[in-house]
Amino acid sequence: MSRDPAMLNAFDPQGAVDMPDAQRALILRRQRVLGPGYRLFYDHPLHIVRGEGVWLYDADGQRYLDAYNNVASIGHGHPRVVDAIARQAATLNTHTRYVHHGVVDYAEQLLATMPDALSQMVFTCTGSEANDLALRVARAYTGASGVIVTQLAYHGVTTAVAGVSPSLGTALAPDTRTVPAPDSYRHEPTTLGSWFAQQVCDAIADLQRHGIRPAALLLDTLFSSDGVYTDPAGFLAPAVAAIRQAGGLFIADEVQAGFARTGAHMWGFARHGLVPDIVTMGKPMGNGHPVAALAARPEVLERFGHEARYFNTFGGNPVSCAAAQATLDVIQQDGLQQNAAHMGAYLRQGLRELGQHHPLIGDVRGDGLFIGVELVRDRLQRLPAKEETHRLVNLLREQHVLLSATGLHGNVLKLRPPLVFSKEHADLLLDTTAQALQRL
Amino acid sequence: MSRDPAMLNAFDPQGAVDMPDAQRALILRRQRVLGPGYRLFYDHPLHIVRGEGVWLYDADGQRYLDAYNNVASIGHGHPRVVDAIARQAATLNTHTRYVHHGVVDYAEQLLATMPDALSQMVFTCTGSEANDLALRVARAYTGASGVIVTQLAYHGVTTAVAGVSPSLGTALAPDTRTVPAPDSYRHEPTTLGSWFAQQVCDAIADLQRHGIRPAALLLDTLFSSDGVYTDPAGFLAPAVAAIRQAGGLFIADEVQAGFARTGAHMWGFARHGLVPDIVTMGKPMGNGHPVAALAARPEVLERFGHEARYFNTFGGNPVSCAAAQATLDVIQQDGLQQNAAHMGAYLRQGLRELGQHHPLIGDVRGDGLFIGVELVRDRLQRLPAKEETHRLVNLLREQHVLLSATGLHGNVLKLRPPLVFSKEHADLLLDTTAQALQRL
Repeated sequence: MSRDPAMLNAFDPQGAVDMPDAQRALILRRQRVLGPGYRLFYDHPLHIVRGEGVWLYDADGQRYLDAYNNVASIGHGHPRVVDAIARQAATLNTHTRYVHHGVVDYAEQLLATMPDALSQMVFTCTGSEANDLALRVARAYTGASGVIVTQLAYHGVTTAVAGVSPSLGTALAPDTRTVPAPDSYRHEPTTLGSWFAQQVCDAIADLQRHGIRPAALLLDTLFSSDGVYTDPAGFLAPAVAAIRQAGGLFIADEVQAGFARTGAHMWGFARHGLVPDIVTMGKPMGNGHPVAALAARPEVLERFGHEARYFNTFGGNPVSCAAAQATLDVIQQDGLQQNAAHMGAYLRQGLRELGQHHPLIGDVRGDGLFIGVELVRDRLQRLPAKEETHRLVNLLREQHVLLSATGLHGNVLKLRPPLVFSKEHADLLLDTTAQALQRL
Repeated sequence: MSRDPAMLNAFDPQGAVDMPDAQRALILRRQRVLGPGYRLFYDHPLHIVRGEGVWLYDADGQRYLDAYNNVASIGHGHPRVVDAIARQAATLNTHTRYVHHGVVDYAEQLLATMPDALSQMVFTCTGSEANDLALRVARAYTGASGVIVTQLAYHGVTTAVAGVSPSLGTALAPDTRTVPAPDSYRHEPTTLGSWFAQQVCDAIADLQRHGIRPAALLLDTLFSSDGVYTDPAGFLAPAVAAIRQAGGLFIADEVQAGFARTGAHMWGFARHGLVPDIVTMGKPMGNGHPVAALAARPEVLERFGHEARYFNTFGGNPVSCAAAQATLDVIQQDGLQQNAAHMGAYLRQGLRELGQHHPLIGDVRGDGLFIGVELVRDRLQRLPAKEETHRLVNLLREQHVLLSATGLHGNVLKLRPPLVFSKEHADLLLDTTAQALQRL
């Protein structure tokens, strides 16, 4: 996403005077064979060679606290996932057109974490594929095509999903409409839900005015790329009622929010007391292994399932399911949802205390271990502190703490550390941030 | 694909009288949580629990010769791939926004197998994602939208790619046009190339008549779902010249043909003396691990790369690249391309000899270890033997040989065994097929 202040837009090897020769040579080879789409994080890119728990290690053996990677959710290189992958890959890895217990066992265990109405799954390999499939399913079920997303939503990179991902900056599809993000920092909490629902109603009306019936309201339930908006809990319910009233479905994109990250719940939609029609999931599902899925009400899947007979060659294969199974087991058996709740509250408290000394910190928000810290130049006017955020993210990287930023103005620090984050790690993050704020 | 005669369309557990209770129970649980999209192969589904080399083993320890799985291309559970995955997963698995040697080393080695003009890669997780991305790239480069595919093409399952995959039976996109497959069994070889090019020219004209400029001719270079058409070598060149003349690109879909399967060459397009603008690859790339990619001319990628800044969370991660690297190493070091050439020729020769006793065998074709055997009721009229093909595929499954069928009438046996297929395996396949043809 182009607004990410950690993103290096063009590496100039001549300018990187203090970079080791080997790293510079590798980056030049990389640019030659991977082309212009492949960006690197940070003004000084990192050459990471090893990961363990919350730590990443560079080629010089220096370690970095990973407070940003929501994919290696139960910790980098978790031995239970590594063992599960290695064992299953040595035993069998094939498609789902033979009977295998792995995909069935996992689907049952995963669906047990969801409301009863969501009782069937379809497996893909990426969150993009899951969201693309959700659009196909929603359109088959409703016979409609319109999709409503937030102003800076990110849902993935296939043609169809890029067309509903305004954060990419590429053209939206003709039947996409956007609504402003539910900016809890700039709206009165008591009216945020009704205001957001009104935006959705306006988008529905605009679709209808163009002869397009609405198929779905598609929302990242944490509004990650919009700037991380979680409060007040329940504010999404009126908007979801509005799309259903208009004949559309509610698709909860849990690719970022799901799998216990939000602490209080296993899934982001639960914070709002909702039962979605379709739930998509991905990133942390296999702790880095390419596995993703959707869950849905069976009546929503029925027509698409019979007509399209979706088959994904790698989706739901025994190795993917073994990785996902091990990840889910660790989340449940090690109490990582509870840890996310406790450590998230501890971090937010610490960040708010930092705010008492640093007026740059305008707002601290989020749920569990998905935290947004909005930096402002003026607390009264709430002017986005974009440049300061960029400098802070890169200062933290120099001090070996990895995070990034998000939001319309790139001025919201985005923290999403592995769920195994402990008090020791949180204190290191807070202390380092305090130092970086001093140096800023 | 709905025409696949190995596909079980609806499992009736009451009807499966000779099925073990445990398997019946597992299938019923499977139907409950996976829904109607998940089909099983064969009238009597298989419960596969282990794979090794060319063999698959069911829950009762019975072994089956896999002559169909083009994903586990260097053999099921190949230890070098398993070791590479296990080692890298324990070391580091993260995204491509940190520098890592794995993706660079692999891209360089892979691109060295291609024409020099194809010098950049973009990594995805599935062939569907690769083809979807290829359409985005082609449309960004040409500024056009029209896509021409064959009558029964299969290119994947995202919204955009399903829209250019008539074999799925779902709606095509408005800017898709189809051309008849280059049926080498029913056309004079000397005119096949010019005839096929004329079909492409007609499709271009039809697009233009609708105000749609052509962006790409997208072809599976083996025409796998159309019925497997490979001869005469070179016949594709005039059609590719036609699309370029009209301002469109040639996208070679090598998801099935690529990675040495065709024996004579590493890539299917090489048989036709072509240099594509974009090449997509997937299935066998990581021997079952979800890794896929496209390769392209850098000038084709340039604009899209800068504007869209494609990022795929799992694409090109260190574990995916380790799996792909090990697979490519084995193909190259064990001479699997040469083996595919020799064994493919041996199998086709054996199948043609079978045809001397069995008039059902109308045509034996293909390249390397991707073979089509067209079954007909009458060699003069070449009437498709659809029912016989269905029965033969299921008879072979009862005799523990796994393959399937393809083509417009589902009457073309499709053989695509692992590239490590030996003479012993080929003889078993030929003998079993001879017996099954007798029993038919």
